[in-house]
Parts: sequence; structure tokens; C-alpha cells
Amino acid sequence: MSRFDEPQDPVFQKLNASIGFDWRLGPYDVAQSRAHASMLAAQGIIAAEECDALLRALDEVEQELDAGGFAFDADDEDIHMAIERRVTELAGPVGGKLHTARSRNDQVATDMTMFVRAHALGTDDRVTAVMSTLADRAEEHLDWPMPGYTHLQRAQPVYLSHHLLAYFWMLQRDRERLRFAAAQADRLPLGSGALAGVNFDTDRRRAAAELGFGSVTRNSIDAVSNRDFVLDFLAAAATCATHLSRLGAELVLWSSEEFGFCELADGFASGSSIMPQKKNPDAAELLRAKAPRVAGHLVALHGVLHGLPLTYNKDMQEDKEHLFDSVDTLDLCLDAARGMLETVAFRRSRLAAAAADEFLAATDVADLLVRRGMPFREAHGVVAGLVRRALERGVALSELSPADLAEQSDLLDEEFYSVLSEGAWLDSKVSEGGTALDRVREQLAEARAALEAQVA
Amino acid sequence: MSRFDEPQDPVFQKLNASIGFDWRLGPYDVAQSRAHASMLAAQGIIAAEECDALLRALDEVEQELDAGGFAFDADDEDIHMAIERRVTELAGPVGGKLHTARSRNDQVATDMTMFVRAHALGTDDRVTAVMSTLADRAEEHLDWPMPGYTHLQRAQPVYLSHHLLAYFWMLQRDRERLRFAAAQADRLPLGSGALAGVNFDTDRRRAAAELGFGSVTRNSIDAVSNRDFVLDFLAAAATCATHLSRLGAELVLWSSEEFGFCELADGFASGSSIMPQKKNPDAAELLRAKAPRVAGHLVALHGVLHGLPLTYNKDMQEDKEHLFDSVDTLDLCLDAARGMLETVAFRRSRLAAAAADEFLAATDVADLLVRRGMPFREAHGVVAGLVRRALERGVALSELSPADLAEQSDLLDEEFYSVLSEGAWLDSKVSEGGTALDRVREQLAEARAALEAQVA
Amino acid sequence: MSRFDEPQDPVFQKLNASIGFDWRLGPYDVAQSRAHASMLAAQGIIAAEECDALLRALDEVEQELDAGGFAFDADDEDIHMAIERRVTELAGPVGGKLHTARSRNDQVATDMTMFVRAHALGTDDRVTAVMSTLADRAEEHLDWPMPGYTHLQRAQPVYLSHHLLAYFWMLQRDRERLRFAAAQADRLPLGSGALAGVNFDTDRRRAAAELGFGSVTRNSIDAVSNRDFVLDFLAAAATCATHLSRLGAELVLWSSEEFGFCELADGFASGSSIMPQKKNPDAAELLRAKAPRVAGHLVALHGVLHGLPLTYNKDMQEDKEHLFDSVDTLDLCLDAARGMLETVAFRRSRLAAAAADEFLAATDVADLLVRRGMPFREAHGVVAGLVRRALERGVALSELSPADLAEQSDLLDEEFYSVLSEGAWLDSKVSEGGTALDRVREQLAEARAALEAQVA
Amino acid sequence: MSRFDEPQDPVFQKLNASIGFDWRLGPYDVAQSRAHASMLAAQGIIAAEECDALLRALDEVEQELDAGGFAFDADDEDIHMAIERRVTELAGPVGGKLHTARSRNDQVATDMTMFVRAHALGTDDRVTAVMSTLADRAEEHLDWPMPGYTHLQRAQPVYLSHHLLAYFWMLQRDRERLRFAAAQADRLPLGSGALAGVNFDTDRRRAAAELGFGSVTRNSIDAVSNRDFVLDFLAAAATCATHLSRLGAELVLWSSEEFGFCELADGFASGSSIMPQKKNPDAAELLRAKAPRVAGHLVALHGVLHGLPLTYNKDMQEDKEHLFDSVDTLDLCLDAARGMLETVAFRRSRLAAAAADEFLAATDVADLLVRRGMPFREAHGVVAGLVRRALERGVALSELSPADLAEQSDLLDEEFYSVLSEGAWLDSKVSEGGTALDRVREQLAEARAALEAQVA
Repeated sequence: MSRFDEPQDPVFQKLNASIGFDWRLGPYDVAQSRAHASMLAAQGIIAAEECDALLRALDEVEQELDAGGFAFDADDEDIHMAIERRVTELAGPVGGKLHTARSRNDQVATDMTMFVRAHALGTDDRVTAVMSTLADRAEEHLDWPMPGYTHLQRAQPVYLSHHLLAYFWMLQRDRERLRFAAAQADRLPLGSGALAGVNFDTDRRRAAAELGFGSVTRNSIDAVSNRDFVLDFLAAAATCATHLSRLGAELVLWSSEEFGFCELADGFASGSSIMPQKKNPDAAELLRAKAPRVAGHLVALHGVLHGLPLTYNKDMQEDKEHLFDSVDTLDLCLDAARGMLETVAFRRSRLAAAAADEFLAATDVADLLVRRGMPFREAHGVVAGLVRRALERGVALSELSPADLAEQSDLLDEEFYSVLSEGAWLDSKVSEGGTALDRVREQLAEARAALEAQVA
Repeated sequence: MSRFDEPQDPVFQKLNASIGFDWRLGPYDVAQSRAHASMLAAQGIIAAEECDALLRALDEVEQELDAGGFAFDADDEDIHMAIERRVTELAGPVGGKLHTARSRNDQVATDMTMFVRAHALGTDDRVTAVMSTLADRAEEHLDWPMPGYTHLQRAQPVYLSHHLLAYFWMLQRDRERLRFAAAQADRLPLGSGALAGVNFDTDRRRAAAELGFGSVTRNSIDAVSNRDFVLDFLAAAATCATHLSRLGAELVLWSSEEFGFCELADGFASGSSIMPQKKNPDAAELLRAKAPRVAGHLVALHGVLHGLPLTYNKDMQEDKEHLFDSVDTLDLCLDAARGMLETVAFRRSRLAAAAADEFLAATDVADLLVRRGMPFREAHGVVAGLVRRALERGVALSELSPADLAEQSDLLDEEFYSVLSEGAWLDSKVSEGGTALDRVREQLAEARAALEAQVA
Repeated sequence: MSRFDEPQDPVFQKLNASIGFDWRLGPYDVAQSRAHASMLAAQGIIAAEECDALLRALDEVEQELDAGGFAFDADDEDIHMAIERRVTELAGPVGGKLHTARSRNDQVATDMTMFVRAHALGTDDRVTAVMSTLADRAEEHLDWPMPGYTHLQRAQPVYLSHHLLAYFWMLQRDRERLRFAAAQADRLPLGSGALAGVNFDTDRRRAAAELGFGSVTRNSIDAVSNRDFVLDFLAAAATCATHLSRLGAELVLWSSEEFGFCELADGFASGSSIMPQKKNPDAAELLRAKAPRVAGHLVALHGVLHGLPLTYNKDMQEDKEHLFDSVDTLDLCLDAARGMLETVAFRRSRLAAAAADEFLAATDVADLLVRRGMPFREAHGVVAGLVRRALERGVALSELSPADLAEQSDLLDEEFYSVLSEGAWLDSKVSEGGTALDRVREQLAEARAALEAQVA
Repeated sequence: MSRFDEPQDPVFQKLNASIGFDWRLGPYDVAQSRAHASMLAAQGIIAAEECDALLRALDEVEQELDAGGFAFDADDEDIHMAIERRVTELAGPVGGKLHTARSRNDQVATDMTMFVRAHALGTDDRVTAVMSTLADRAEEHLDWPMPGYTHLQRAQPVYLSHHLLAYFWMLQRDRERLRFAAAQADRLPLGSGALAGVNFDTDRRRAAAELGFGSVTRNSIDAVSNRDFVLDFLAAAATCATHLSRLGAELVLWSSEEFGFCELADGFASGSSIMPQKKNPDAAELLRAKAPRVAGHLVALHGVLHGLPLTYNKDMQEDKEHLFDSVDTLDLCLDAARGMLETVAFRRSRLAAAAADEFLAATDVADLLVRRGMPFREAHGVVAGLVRRALERGVALSELSPADLAEQSDLLDEEFYSVLSEGAWLDSKVSEGGTALDRVREQLAEARAALEAQVA
């Protein structure tokens, strides 16, 4: 019996029902119900045989959910009601005891923390797989020179390995973020009741231990009002997606005829409906395009929580679709990034030709002057003068004559020409984290160590 | 035959395929194909009997789509390919002529403009229905006093009708926005080809006329790169959703025991899983909660388009889910708003009791002094002094003695007490658009006229 | 005298004061006060000589504001109080009459509508200036071939003029959006009082006429609660900024050594602090980078208004900085875009070399087959086979032998080779809005007509 | 001498210059330059006396910056150039050596990490101060009953202390987030050069140690391309601001006449320009209104970084204003929150009267039945029936007769009436984290311990 006279309006039902998406919480809901029932029995709140009946029914529900055979009912507003209904069908009236000392409010908060923990760690695995691929591809292309860019202008030569490893460290930070989100979801809300705690002598730490939570929430009002851990996951996901969007953008750029630095595998490219010659880097474009979607989810959930009085409000049901779609989007992007990176073919000659642009050695020429005692700022001006002269004449720097050099500075001698000979530029970047080959080898070893550390 | 050696990677297929959502473009795609085929025949690019065969097949496809009997194929990457495949199955090789002088790029742009136009107008109808309900409820509660609030503090009394009509005018502006979006989708992109136009002597204006477009796009590059009209729809939707969130927030507030201004119908409320006494305004909360979702879609699409070089890029496929979910979300919210407004019961006595708070007449007392020649700023200070005195003593303003009044100003006499007698306050707001009953009647007439104008 | 015992806390003052930014409303506040005073006098609410005194003081204030000589006071919380204070200093106690029949709520709403109208039109002028530059540059480069891109892959050749004009039409739509925003700010809120209207027999239409408003708001509650017109401006600004970000991104790309399609003028480029050879397209990068800022303002204001109960709430003070910074950001970007476009040098030979890539003619070869009766879909496959063969052999399409052609289709004859000869491809795109030279000339004429229409 | 022929265009200068906001990086720039110079000398890259001269000049610059006497030059594009210019004025040509082995790219990344670390910790202190105030106010109002709300409907009674402490734990999590951001800014980018490392045998760990960084970045490309730590700070700030918006919203609500649960101090409230009786909770409204601004900055920076190719691009200059305004906004909000919380007066009688609403005991009646063996779900139905009966009759639950009770269930006896007697409800919530007084005391002790832990 309900206190209401009238049935729900169909429009309201459509707006209100969450079963269309919160079915994904099913496995977590079963697990928490199992832990809850066991705790109730251990505390003497329900009888041992009642607990057994509940656990048996929950096992059955779990199997039905796993096998896809769980039959949803038109009146199942959400997954929690669906499962309780089914438990009661299976176990009889004792099913009605499952909700003792529990409210939908702490129940859904608990499912959500469990989902976030599980998926933060699952996404973490996918990030690690991309990192592993990056390390492998870096090792394969250890000494392939290419231009490094600032402002999309060729700046200084680097090794392709060094460039690829830059993404490795971005993703390593993403792992730190995902783990932070998992840690924020490590306090069990269950046992907080509707908002004030419950009337029973429960043992929340027992349930926490069974479910693998590190601790329990401290304040029942906060426990049911809190979705910070969802924001934390979304923030981590948005940053990771932004990293992937940079990778995607570079793959698009490098796949252009003009750059020609790489060719995506056929398996990650599309043709055109009208232009038979086209090979389009669709996967890379979509990698780029998905980041704003995740950031949109993040800002939307901030919007939902903005100005919301305590404690639970129905608005908080909006946390789910933003979270679920972010998980799916990011996981798919990570898998696609890995597949693309594993199969992309880099073009050594195009990379090398671009890296051989002599203007990229300009800083090194300036540093030559610095080593001869000229303040850097002054050396910068001298070399700018040389660049200007070369551009005016349409020649390379190495085609300037000794007289041209002398005009700019008497500190410039033959070594100028040897600085401009290719190999030298790259391997002179000997500072820690720099692109000199020994430094990249050192970095790669650190990368491998980081990967092993996370497996262990 | 394709220029590719390798099949698509399954991960890429999953990322790339849009059929999971762009099936919604089906009816528009059939309609544009019909207009395209007719134009090709009229221009002699295909034969009349080829056109007939195509049109027959398209009719068949349309019926299959309508009846839900259209069989999708595992390889149908998007709705456009699915329909072309099916047309070819039905009509034979001539199906391959449907894509003559057309590219997927102008095709999808055309479907999207058609979708936006149709849904902008469909949403407009729903907005109009809510407006109509507001006008009806305003008429029913024409002279029910209630407090008007600023800063959520009681400020001056108004009629409930006046308050309800405030939402009427917000929604009227939403209609203007939706129509602007529809107008931005009134230029036909079809015929722009991949990006450069097509090699055939087409008649774009013929297709435009058949499809009900007002004009054709001017520049083929812009035509396939443009999604402004989606942004326009999303901006309109976000503002409308924000309006509904304000309405939802007020219904939540007014449903609290503390305000007690209204009671939602049972059909738009929920109970609690644990607290049997609860009647929760879930529908109103969800109305409030959905606005950030639509704004999130808007900002996400801005993100997708940000910095995107011309012309078409695969990133633009991300326009669809943001648009479709915004349409569905807003339309459901509008229907729920109408249902709630139609059935909510206002509580006259609670509204009236709150409106009888004498402090709400403070401005009127100040205006009394103004009419006696005191500058308003000074009058404001005098009344603030009276308020302060009343608060100190814990009495109502009307309980202050003539001596108290004299202490603040010798311009205060018996009329002070008559200003404080209830009815006077409300109906003194005689300015155009004000809450005086005649003005509200005038406003209601304008509202009715606005509703009729849009039907006509 | 105030009803308060205690002074404002300094922290609160800092949080609350808007004078640090709303001084920009000064000129509008003076203008509306002038219209308000005149109306009060015309209606007999204040005396003619009082009105004269107020107008004289307002003139003085206006001059002080214009000349930068207006002295702000530490206690001036906002521009409205600052001006009223100064008016009272100049005119004496009659200054206190200026606020008769007006509240800060309708006053600030009025200033904001005036600001939005003025700036929507001012920004519109700047947009027009960029359009004019685009038309000029298109005319100068009317017949310069370049590759058109889809997915950043060379797709089909277009004229540079056609590409530049694509931006013209984007900006033309921006103008429509800005004018829509101006139209949404064309209803005068003044006279709505705090929320309920005012106690005086005012003439709102008189003030509207004096201030150039087309009409007056219909409902006083809505009038003080409404910031839709700010959202409208921000939506228009965000879309325009997104357009400019696409332009900026292309200029960055085209300035790369790899594309080499253009060189920015020195006046719009930067050097490097360390690399003397660099010429960085900073202005173009910033054009790209500013769009998210404006979209951020838009989503933030949606957030502010989300769930806000009627009528005025202090939260609405947050509208200003979002608006002001958007105006400044967009206007500066428009000026920079114009400057860059006026001075950028395009490189004909680089553009032409890229456009000469024979693969860009693949669609035209397919269309040749279509004209010979082959369904397009089949023709697409035939040409894909030719492309594949050419790629395998590392030759251009025109280097394939007649035997190669025959292997794919017996419809391929000598005309295949003539289709591949350059000039033909471009000018075959004869459809309306296409890149054929006559069509671009037609388009340019329309663009000029559109520019003239808006000046007139 | 530069490689450019033409001076910067004034519009470009305006767009490009960051000195208007990045002057805030001054102190960090001086500190890093000091560490950089010392390292250069220690490594023999510059002479000891050169280093001394640089350090003396930097000390002087620091004093000038501190004292506000630093004279900016019209040509100072950014703070880095301003400081280098001034160092050179003070120290002579040796000033030009300060930029040896350093680029603007690693320099600005370093300043930004230093700024984020310092401000994350500074904001952390402010958060802690609010937490301390919350603990104090909770202690003062330990046993003040009030209604707890779900869906803004009275749900179950709680103690005000318990409600206030809910915010304590939100803020505690904010501290975890801020520290995470600080940890993400603990890797020194300095020494990465423009992007590739530098040509000198530098000792990056020496500089890191001097500046208090825990480690150095691993990859020079990543080091100059990375702004993740800014995103981390903004994410932490947005969540904290969202928490404060919930607090602000509750203070607004509670300050309404209808709730009447508290009165803000005069120092944190405003009057009205027109309504002399008003006391508006402006500070609380602004607390609510500022959260979307910070979330807007977060989503904007995601937008800036979206799809940005490596390494440094000028777009990244947009990180600064978003960060600086977020810091200022959040810090001011935290100070205002503290001030409001310290001075707000709660109204015991209004809180208690609302908490005495008997319907709030409905769950407790259901739990009484559960203790007598009835499954909770069934008990919920029985009590819903009682509620319905009471509402129909317009009586309180305790006014139902024993016969009424018997009609619903024979398990209901006299204890029904004692459950409804007030004190019982609250203190029955004995679960860990619940509102029973002992549990709140326990929680308060944990809160105090948490505060002490962070001071230590």
C-alpha cells in the first residue's frame, strides 16, 4: 500500500525511470545486497536461515543477470527495485527483509562507488596497455630523427622515440588520476540509511571488508549527498581523453600528404563515398573528437550538483548517464589508440628529410657562441642575423660564406659548419629528459620500470 | 573494389559506426534521395525509368522504416549506406546511380538540416502547449495573492497569475529561438558534393523546393563544413531547458512543508523506499536537473568544432548524439512540465498567509512619503527606520504608534495605516506589465493573442 | 538610515562589490536615468525644475565619465550607486528623487539590455569588416588553385577564393545571430520596479522611445529575472569565436613548412626566446585558443541561471564579467583576424603544386564513367582499382597504360588522360555554389551585394 | 637583431601580450632564475662572479616587485622578458647569460607549476579554516534538532551539528584534491629547453632541490606541452566551489521567512535599493553563483588543450587567466564562507518546531514493526497506510486511535505512541556515521583529529 491515490503519469514514468541505464549497476547491487544480508544476520537483525534464503536468491539473480536471462518487469523503475522484486519472487516474503536498515539512498551511493572503483581500475588497465604499446613503438623507432615542433613550426630535431614517449608520461599521469578517483570511492556509504543513519545496531565495517572498501563514510548526510567520486572519475577521464585528442590530432596531421610522416593501417582508415583515391584517418579524427564529449559530461555533472541542498535529491540520478557514457567513450578510445599505434607505419625518409632542415640547428649555433663567452641573448641576435641573411638569399645556413659569418660576429669560424652537420644537433641535447640517444634510452628504461611496477 | 588491402579492425568499426544512432535520420535520407533522384532525371543526368525505379525502391524503404521492418546489415556503417544498399537490393544496379552528383558530405549535412528544421518546429509545438497551460492556470488563479521574492526574501505581493505568466514570456522567447534555429537550417546543402560542387549540371533549387527549403547554400566548402544550425538548436534548447529548470526549482521549493504553496499531483510524485510518509517532487527535480545536460551538449559540440580545419572532418559525426539527446531530453521535459502544471494544486491559504506579511508593504509606505514630496532615497531611510523599530520590538509595522511614526518623519499620518491594509499593496502596481489586476488581465489577453498568432 | 546594525564585513564587500567591472555600464546608466527623469516629469511625478536639475547633473556625470574624471568613492558598491551619489552631490537632495518608481533590479536589467544591443551591433560592424577583407582577398586570388581537403586529406582542387569565401558565409550567419541577440534586447525592462511594477502612473513607452527600444517587457517579474539576451549574445559570440578558431587553425597549418601555403606578415608573428630561426604564428594560434574561453562563459552563465527561483537573485550579478570578457575577447579576435587576413601572403606555387596532385581527379574519372552509363557506385570501384594499381607501382594515375585501364573497365579510353590534365578538374564543378570560376564570380558578386545591403 | 623586418601590429600586440596578467608569476620567475643561475655556475656554464651579479640583480628585482616599485616597460610583452630586461639594466650584458640553457617554454611551465603548488597549498589553508569553523559551530549546536531533508521534503530529524559536519567532510575531500594537484606540480620542467633538452651539461636535480620540487620531468617534449597540473587544480577548485554553492544555497533557503532556520549577520547581508524592509543574503547567493564560473574555466582549458599538437603552442598562454581567476574566486568564496559561518545565528525554536513534525518518525514506526518480525517492505506499506489515514483526516500520526492502528496491523500497540514522542527518533540512529548524539560526538572527535593531523 502506498500513500498515493493516483498512479504515475506515463510522461513522469518515462522521465523518472532509470532502468534503461542503471541496469549496469546490477552486479554491484547484488554484491552489496549479499554483504548487507550477511551483516544483518551476523548482527542478529535477521535470522541465519533468512540470510541463507536471501543469499540463495541473490545467487540466482546474479546468474540470471550474467546469462542475460533476467526478466525485467514493466514496473521495474530502477535496477534496485527489479532485483528486490526478483529476490522476493524467488525467496518469498523474506525478500522484503533485504531492505531492512537500508535506504535506496545509501544503496545507490554504494553501487555508484563500486562502479567507479571497478571502472577506474579497468580503465587503468587499458591506459597501461596503450603505454606498453608506446614503449614498444618507441623502442622500434629509437633513433629515427624527426623535427620537433613548437607553434607547429619546425623547432629542433628530436627522435621519434622521444616524441612517442611524451605520450607515455601523459598517460602515466592519467593512471595517477584514475587511482585517485578509485581511492575517493573507497569509503563505503552503505549503512547511512536515507540520510540520518539507521535504527539498528549494524556493523558497517564488516560489509566494507566483504566488499573490499578501505573504510566507511563518516557522516550519513554527506554519504548520501556525495557524488565527488564521480566528478573525480570524470575529471580523470576528461584529461585522459584530452591527451588522446592530442594524439589523434597529430596522427591526422602526420597522415596528410604534406607531412607524410605516417600511414595508418587500412584497418583504422576509411574510404570516401565519392572520392575513390581517399584514405581517411577516421579513427584518429574520432579520437580527437571525443574529448569534448567527456568534458561536456564533467561540466554537466557540476551543473547538476550546483546549488543542490542536502541531502539526496532526485537530480542526482543524472550522475549515471554522464558516468556510463564517459566510461564507454574513453575505453573505446583507449582501445582504438592502442590499435592505431600498434599498426601505424612511420615513414623514415619523410621524417628524416624534414628533420634535416638546417634552420633547426639555429639554437645550436647560438649555443656555440655562448660557449665562446657571448651572452645568450646577444648570440640569439647574431644567429637571427644569419637566418635573415640566408632567407634573403634563399640559401641554407651552411651556404653562407665565412665572410657572411664574420659580418655578424668574429667568434664564428669553421665550427659553425660542423655544428650544422646533421647528427650533431640531436645528440647534443644531453640534459636529463632531453632527446640525446642515451637520455632516451634512460627514459625508456624508466618507462619499462614504471610499467612493471604497476603490474606487480 | 576498394583501394584498401585490409578489412576494418573491429575496434575501429565500433568507434566509427554511426548506425546505432543515425538511423534516426532515415526518413530524411529517403526524402532527400527522392528529391535528388527526381532532380537528376529532370536534368537528364539519369533516365526517367531509372528515376522511377529508384523512387519505387525508396518508397519501399520508407515503408520498411516506418513499419520497423527494415533489416539492417552488419556491414551497414551508417544509415546512408544502409538505405543505398537496400535500394540496390530492391532496384538492382541502378541503385548505384543514386549517389551520382552527391557525396556523403552534402548528404549528411542535408539530413541534419532537415532533422533540425523538423524538430525545431516539433519542439516549438510542445513549448506552445506549455504556454497554453500556463495561460489557463493563470486565468484560474487570476487574483490569488502570493509573495513575490527577490533574493528568496519576500519582497512585494503579486498575483499567482502574474508569476505564472512570467514563465509564459520566457517560453515565448524560446519559440523565437527555435524558429531562428529552423531558419538557419533553411538553406539546402545538397548539391555541394564532397566539398567543391559536382561535375554535373544540377538544379539545386528544384531539390530545395521539393524538400521545402527556402534557399540553397552559397558555397560548397561552407555547406559541408557547417554545423552552425545544430549549435543554434542546442543554444535554443539549452536556454529553454534552463527556463524549465527554474520552474522545476520553484515547484520543488513550493512543495516543501515550509513553503507549502502547492502540491504536485500523485501522478508526478514518488514515494520513498524507506520513509513511508514521503511524497517527493521527483518530476520537478528532474526538470531542474536536465538543463546542465543540454548545456553540456552545447559546449561539447563547440569543443568538437573548435579549431577544425575545413572542410568535412570525421569529428563532425559527433554532432548527432549531442543533438538527438538534446531533442529527446527537452521534449520529455516540456511534456512533463505541461503535465505537472496541468495537475498541480495551489494552496490559496498558504499563499495568502505569506502574502499578508506586512513588511512587504514597506516600499509602498516609502512611496507614500514620495508623494508627499520627500525624495525617494530619504523616504527609503525613514521606512528602514520604522522596520528597524518594529523588528526591535517584535511587532508588525501596523502596530507602531503614531508617536513612533512621528519620530521618523512628520509626513507620516493615518494614511500609513491604510497603506498597510492588505488589498492596497497589490493593486497599486499599476505600471504597464505590473501586477495590478487590470494589468494582469491585459497581459493575459496579450498572451492569448500570442498563442493564437502562432496557431494561425 | 538602514535597517542594519552592523557594517559590511570587508570580505563580503569584496565579494559583493561590482564596481570593479560594472563601471562599463556607466554611459548606459546615465542615458537611462535621463530618460527616466524626463518621463517622471512628463507624467507629473517630479516637477519640471527637478527634472532639469537632474538632467544637468547627469550631463555633468556623463562628461566626467567620458573624460575619465569621475571620482569613485570607496563606498560605491556599484556604478548605479556611484552615479546616484554623484548626482546628489551635484544637484542636492533632489538627486534622491531619481530613484522614484525605479528599482536597482529594473535599472540593472535595462543597462544590460542597452549594453548588449550596443555591443551586438558594434561586434556586427567588426564582423562586417572581416567579411569585407575576405571578399577583397578572394578577389585578389580568384583563380589560384589549391587542394580542398576532407579529413585533412587532399580531396578535390578548389580556388583559394572559394575557400576564403567559405569563411565569408560563416561570418554572415554570425551577423544574423548578433542581430537576433540585439532584437532580444529590444524590450525595455525599465519601469518593472523591484519585481511587481511600481506605484506610479508611469509611461514606459515614452522612455522606450527615448532610448531607442522597440517595445517594453510584458511582465515585471520576467523583466527583472531575465538574462536570456545575454545568453543570446554569448551564444552568438561563441559560434563566431568557433569560426575564427577554425580560421586560426588553418592559418597555423598553412604556415607550417610542410604546407607552406602562406606566410603571415611580420606584424602578426613572433620570434622565439631561444630559437633564432623561428617565425611563430602566435596571432593565429591565439585566434584558435580563444573560442573555448567564450564557450566557457556561455556554459558558466547557463550554470548561474540553472535552477534559480524567480525573481532577481544576486547570482545574476555574475552575468557581467562573462559578458564583458566575451565582448572584449571576440572584438579583439575579429580585429586580429582582419589584420592577419589583410596582410598574409599566400604562396601561389606551393598551393598550385599541391593542387596538381593527380589523385585529386579521381572523382572526375569516376564521373567520366558515369557519363558513359556506369552507375556511380560501380565507377567508384573501378577508379579505386586504378588508384590501388598506381600506388602499388608508385606511379601517377596518368602513368598507367591503356592496358591498365582496360583491365579495370572497357569504358576507359583516351579521355581518361585528358580528364587528368589539370585545368579541367576545377572548372568542371559547375553546380551552384561550386568552385568553377564562373560560380565563384557569381558568389563574389553575391558577397559584395550582402556587404552593401548591410551598409545601407 | 631579429629576423623580422616589420614591427608588431598594435592589434597583435594587444592580443599577444600577457603582461597584463602574468605579472603574478613574478616572484616565481625570480626564484627560478636564481636557482637556474646558481646551477649554471655550479656546473661551470657561467662564471661564479657572473652568477653573483645575476643574483644581486635578481634580489633587486624581487624587492622592486615586492614593494610595487618595479617599472614595467611598454615593450615588456610578458613578465619573463620584463625581468630579464631589468636584470640586464641592473647587471649589464651578463644579464643576457641568464637565458643560457633555458627557453621561454620550460621557464613558463616552471613558473606555472610553482604557482599551482603554492596556491594549492594556500587554498588548502583556507579550506582548513572553514573546516575549523564548521567544527566549532557543530560543537556549539551539538544537540539542536532539525529536520533532515531528501528531495527538499522533511525526511528524518537530525542534529544541526550533524548537518554542519557533512560539509566538513566534503571540504576534507577537497583538501585531498588540492594536495593531489600540488603533487602533480611537483616535477620540475626547468631544463627541458624549448622542447628537446639543452646543449649544456646541466644539473636539473640541483635546481629542483633548491626550488623544493620532489623530482624532475622525464621527457622534455612532455614537460613543455603539459598543463595537466593546471587542469588538476581547476578540477579541485570546481568541486570545492560546487560544495560551497550547496552551502550557499542552503543558507539562502534557511534565511527565507518560510524556513527561518537562520539569520545571516548584518555584515554579510545587503539591503534593497527600493524595499526598505529587505535583508538579502547576497553573500550566500554569490557563494552559490560562483561555482559555474570555476567549472567554466575548467571546461575552457580542456577546450584549449583539445587536439593541440605537441609541443608548446601559443594557445597554452590561455591557461593563465583561467587559473588566476579560479584561485581568486575560490579563495574569496572560502573566506566569505568562513565569515558567514562564524557569524550566522541559527534559530533553535524554528529548527525544533520543524523537526517536531511527527511524519518524520514514520520510518521508525516501520522499524518497530520490523523488530517484531515483519519484513521491512511490508512494514513500509503498513505505515504508508497510517500516513494516508492521517492525511485524510488532517490529524497527526499520534492522533490516530488504537483501532486505526489495529486496522493496519495487529503488531501495532502502545509502543507506537512512544516511538512518536520526539527525543526517541533522533537518538535511535545509532549506526556508525549516524545522527545519534554519541555518534556525532565520535564524529566531531574525528573531525578535530583530522584538523590536528593537517596542522602537524
